[in-house]
Amino acid sequence: MQQHTQTIQVKSHGRQLYDITPQVLGWANSLGLTTGLITVYIQHTSASLLINENYDHDVLVDMEAFFKRLVPDGDPLFIHTVEGPDDMPAHVRTALTQTSLSIPLIDGKAALGQWQGIFLYEHRHVASARRVILHLIGE
Amino acid sequence: MQQHTQTIQVKSHGRQLYDITPQVLGWANSLGLTTGLITVYIQHTSASLLINENYDHDVLVDMEAFFKRLVPDGDPLFIHTVEGPDDMPAHVRTALTQTSLSIPLIDGKAALGQWQGIFLYEHRHVASARRVILHLIGE
Amino acid sequence: MQQHTQTIQVKSHGRQLYDITPQVLGWANSLGLTTGLITVYIQHTSASLLINENYDHDVLVDMEAFFKRLVPDGDPLFIHTVEGPDDMPAHVRTALTQTSLSIPLIDGKAALGQWQGIFLYEHRHVASARRVILHLIGE
Repeated sequence: MQQHTQTIQVKSHGRQLYDITPQVLGWANSLGLTTGLITVYIQHTSASLLINENYDHDVLVDMEAFFKRLVPDGDPLFIHTVEGPDDMPAHVRTALTQTSLSIPLIDGKAALGQWQGIFLYEHRHVASARRVILHLIGE
Repeated sequence: MQQHTQTIQVKSHGRQLYDITPQVLGWANSLGLTTGLITVYIQHTSASLLINENYDHDVLVDMEAFFKRLVPDGDPLFIHTVEGPDDMPAHVRTALTQTSLSIPLIDGKAALGQWQGIFLYEHRHVASARRVILHLIGE
Repeated sequence: MQQHTQTIQVKSHGRQLYDITPQVLGWANSLGLTTGLITVYIQHTSASLLINENYDHDVLVDMEAFFKRLVPDGDPLFIHTVEGPDDMPAHVRTALTQTSLSIPLIDGKAALGQWQGIFLYEHRHVASARRVILHLIGE
């Protein structure tokens, strides 16, 4: 049994979903393992992870439209506004999505479904450099 | 240390929660391992996974009532409607729940709590055959 | 490769976020492993897990304000009210957050980001003793 780890940096430029499937699969599928478990972990609380459709870009547009309406910027409900009107909404949107993802590796490949992509969801409007940790255990 | 994998197919017949606890536990608890980690992974973006109460069926009814109101079918907000009024709501509902679950195996059994069941949440109204990947590492 | 497991009990006294970072890290970082995967699993359906900011307490206040508004107690939508007006909202809030978390262990330490804390989110108003299972595999 082996373990491998990797840190990837994702440069975001505003609130949107960033497809990180190539980075994750490029790494996981190249290590020569047959069976294993991939963990994707984001070290932030205002950006998150999401597996969703990566075929029609409209899905990403609609996803953001939904979250923008559900957790509006500048909501007077919030008192934690130190970094601006998108500060607390970013934390809530992170809570409603994922900080970690687990994906089996089967027959040497991450077992994503046909239409699944792995996304980093940047919830802040400001540009950032986001850190994502990859871990693979298997053989 | 050993690994085991399995693919299960769940035939859904419309939007609801399907209890897959027997399939997951029947497999995981029968492999003869004492300690390990079970991963449940669904290969879709319009159906998801959820651990919730499996005792009172009303919980499942209310869960669906809540998600139906939170993410209404035919919402004019959405432009991704190619597969109908429940297309984009299915992707959003998937984003709000889980694509992967991690469950420790302790003393030879999946460590579910007394009232916990593992559910596949079908978010489309059409019948489908859904693929769920199981992975177990342990000894 | 080694595995370690631990059960921790968290005594809650009403609906709020409880920081369990010290218990999880105190255990995981003390086992002497260099690289691994930590799983945190809660055995309940009316309390959940969340990784979010642990610096400004206002984030926790706002998080609860958001969920209280999104899933109101006593909502006439719900028929599962056997344990009171916060019964079904607790199940929904659990569905919208996490039952399991996966955190890589890198260089002997859980790879939490600088501002990340691990929280148990108690969704019931009544006091409870909540069980959280920890699992670590690595070497």
